[in-house]
Amino acid sequence: MNCAILTIGDELLIGQTVNTNAASIAWQCTQRAGVSFPVHSTVADDTGVIVAELRRLSELADVIITTGGLGPTHDDKTVASVAEFADVPLIRDNTWVDHLRSMMVALGRELTPRNEHQAMVPATAQVWYDSIGTAPGFVIEVPRSTRTPLTVCVLPGVPSEMQYLTDEHVVPLLQNKMMESGDAVTEFRTVVTSGIPESTLADLLGEPEVWARGAAVAFLPHAHGVRIRVGVTATDARYRTETLGQILAYIRSQAERYVVGTDDVTLASAVGDILRRHSQTVAVAESCTAGMLGSALTDVPGSSAWFEGGVIAYSNRVKQHLLSVTLETLNTVGAVSSQVAAQMAEGARDVVGATWGVGITGIAGPDGGTADKPVGTVWIGIAGPHGTTTTLRRFTGNRSMIRSRAAATALTLLYQTLTHEP
Amino acid sequence: MNCAILTIGDELLIGQTVNTNAASIAWQCTQRAGVSFPVHSTVADDTGVIVAELRRLSELADVIITTGGLGPTHDDKTVASVAEFADVPLIRDNTWVDHLRSMMVALGRELTPRNEHQAMVPATAQVWYDSIGTAPGFVIEVPRSTRTPLTVCVLPGVPSEMQYLTDEHVVPLLQNKMMESGDAVTEFRTVVTSGIPESTLADLLGEPEVWARGAAVAFLPHAHGVRIRVGVTATDARYRTETLGQILAYIRSQAERYVVGTDDVTLASAVGDILRRHSQTVAVAESCTAGMLGSALTDVPGSSAWFEGGVIAYSNRVKQHLLSVTLETLNTVGAVSSQVAAQMAEGARDVVGATWGVGITGIAGPDGGTADKPVGTVWIGIAGPHGTTTTLRRFTGNRSMIRSRAAATALTLLYQTLTHEP
Repeated sequence: MNCAILTIGDELLIGQTVNTNAASIAWQCTQRAGVSFPVHSTVADDTGVIVAELRRLSELADVIITTGGLGPTHDDKTVASVAEFADVPLIRDNTWVDHLRSMMVALGRELTPRNEHQAMVPATAQVWYDSIGTAPGFVIEVPRSTRTPLTVCVLPGVPSEMQYLTDEHVVPLLQNKMMESGDAVTEFRTVVTSGIPESTLADLLGEPEVWARGAAVAFLPHAHGVRIRVGVTATDARYRTETLGQILAYIRSQAERYVVGTDDVTLASAVGDILRRHSQTVAVAESCTAGMLGSALTDVPGSSAWFEGGVIAYSNRVKQHLLSVTLETLNTVGAVSSQVAAQMAEGARDVVGATWGVGITGIAGPDGGTADKPVGTVWIGIAGPHGTTTTLRRFTGNRSMIRSRAAATALTLLYQTLTHEP
Repeated sequence: MNCAILTIGDELLIGQTVNTNAASIAWQCTQRAGVSFPVHSTVADDTGVIVAELRRLSELADVIITTGGLGPTHDDKTVASVAEFADVPLIRDNTWVDHLRSMMVALGRELTPRNEHQAMVPATAQVWYDSIGTAPGFVIEVPRSTRTPLTVCVLPGVPSEMQYLTDEHVVPLLQNKMMESGDAVTEFRTVVTSGIPESTLADLLGEPEVWARGAAVAFLPHAHGVRIRVGVTATDARYRTETLGQILAYIRSQAERYVVGTDDVTLASAVGDILRRHSQTVAVAESCTAGMLGSALTDVPGSSAWFEGGVIAYSNRVKQHLLSVTLETLNTVGAVSSQVAAQMAEGARDVVGATWGVGITGIAGPDGGTADKPVGTVWIGIAGPHGTTTTLRRFTGNRSMIRSRAAATALTLLYQTLTHEP
């Protein structure tokens, strides 16, 4: 069964907002309901354009999921556009008005006409009354002349509200439709690798025509390494599972030493697994990244078992006072140096009492670079039971890219150290 | 002049990757060249689909910018698709082969046939030889029967490579085309607000038809508050600037106390401005956010003037040892409490020697919640020269949402404290 995502909003077209909603909806619906998305598109807050795009997408898909344009201001046009496309009038939904009123009372505010306007919905819509924002999500069936009716799911653009309705309503609705249709389901598995370039990995595996048994194979380069995604399309669930298992076994057999894990494994969760298995812990000391590595490690649920904390040592003063970096080292070789990265890693390990310490110090720019140490110069130290190593990297890109890459590289080096240590 | 962005890749359609490239390209091209994007679309790594989508978009736009699908593996189909669409053969670009060979030599690797394949480009393409990856970006002019030729810019999907070519080639190319065309340019300004809900702000300003002088006005709700974006379309640069100035002055006159600043101002940069003006500094103590606030503050270039660092105090042990949180408090009221948030904020302030300290402690889940303190419970403390305040919030959503909201709320509270203090 084909679905389409239509994200609505000028802020997306001009690039002021990153379209995280499309990814979030697509991931939930492909992974949990097995549907396919041949197309995503993004259009302006303009009734004529939205109606025309709904018409075009209705030729390509049986379900359209829209997100955005349900707010209380003049630039929110989605509800009126969907009603025009479905050729039904807008009506005032009194249940939602009552709900809005009690929501406002709880916030100590009054129901304004502007809020009340958010209770207008297409007459034939089935409203999701448990929507968590002030705009109700809804689903509407639209007859098509030559095919089965089209289903349009209308979601708010606020990510938490969109996410809630996707989980609670859209995914179950798609699961039912897939079951009724008897369509082939695409099931995905992903192998996460680290430490090998994309082209070398592809050569190591050989031509997918030979080993992938007709599955769709994609190579996805990421900050931490390359992911190999495999998709098998079939009606028989057992066939899908077995085929995916065989393909994953082949990939492992060829690229074992680069495989970090499968599916939702991240480098941070892989690091956590190793540490937990060995009853070890890690601490961080971050200068230019100022918390990005700590934040990445604690993205992993249960990270408190192997991460206790660390120090954000942005200034030299904090490096000295909290991590015991010596003034002499700072004065002779400077804060961005192998020695300071090592002392920061050792300081973090000591002050937290952890098995491992990671220190990151570098120049993220735009200012602060010199001929010797240009913007992008980053030293990473890793201290552990067997001593301390340091690594120099020179990253290109803007401030934000240099910071992200420094944190990603520190995590990769930590993973490599943990897997190569005895 | 109308442009379209075509992002290519199955990983985007299934939602495995967030489409940051579309936003990045659109933002650069609208802000720096003043072009308009009526549509973004995303399609699969499939030659037939890519060619069909190029045909459709060529009806809507004069320039199409593609990104993705230039890699070395079998699932990269963009170059062949563009050649088919333009109806020109692929040729081997020997200059790029030489470039690739020296790139590989520098990495201590050999040029493989797979890499060499990346030097195939459409015969009439103008190759961007300074591309920083192994795939060359290029631009190609495609004749159209009824209109001026279409320009197709082809960029890699790796964000840093895409970004470099957009800066160096695509934006200057669009700037020239806009100058030649004499088309009206859309210029944007954004007013950043904090502390007022979207519908209240809209009511405060009144109907845009009355005050916006024909400009396009959009309300964009964000984690830190609502942004109001104003766009004026005109050929006369002076008219655009003056009209935008008048509209911004009106918004300020109506909503002064909620206005944080304009355009690229963020809550973090606004906090930094206030601190720098008063020669003050801030330190952080982060438990559940584990570095997210430190990372947000140091996104601001020059933040070392007002941020020295802090402590990632994920465990109680680190809270005690580095921030002097008392064991008695931890044992009686628990780590997620007003008292511990206050002691963390005060501890951060003391240990770093900063004017202000911010402490964040909460339960991000999925485990660790209780009836009293469910997942989502977060206490935020702010310590300063006039004492310490604490705030309780209960966030909904998953682990990652709770963490982001906790960091965003701490930043908002810090901003409010700084602007309300005498």
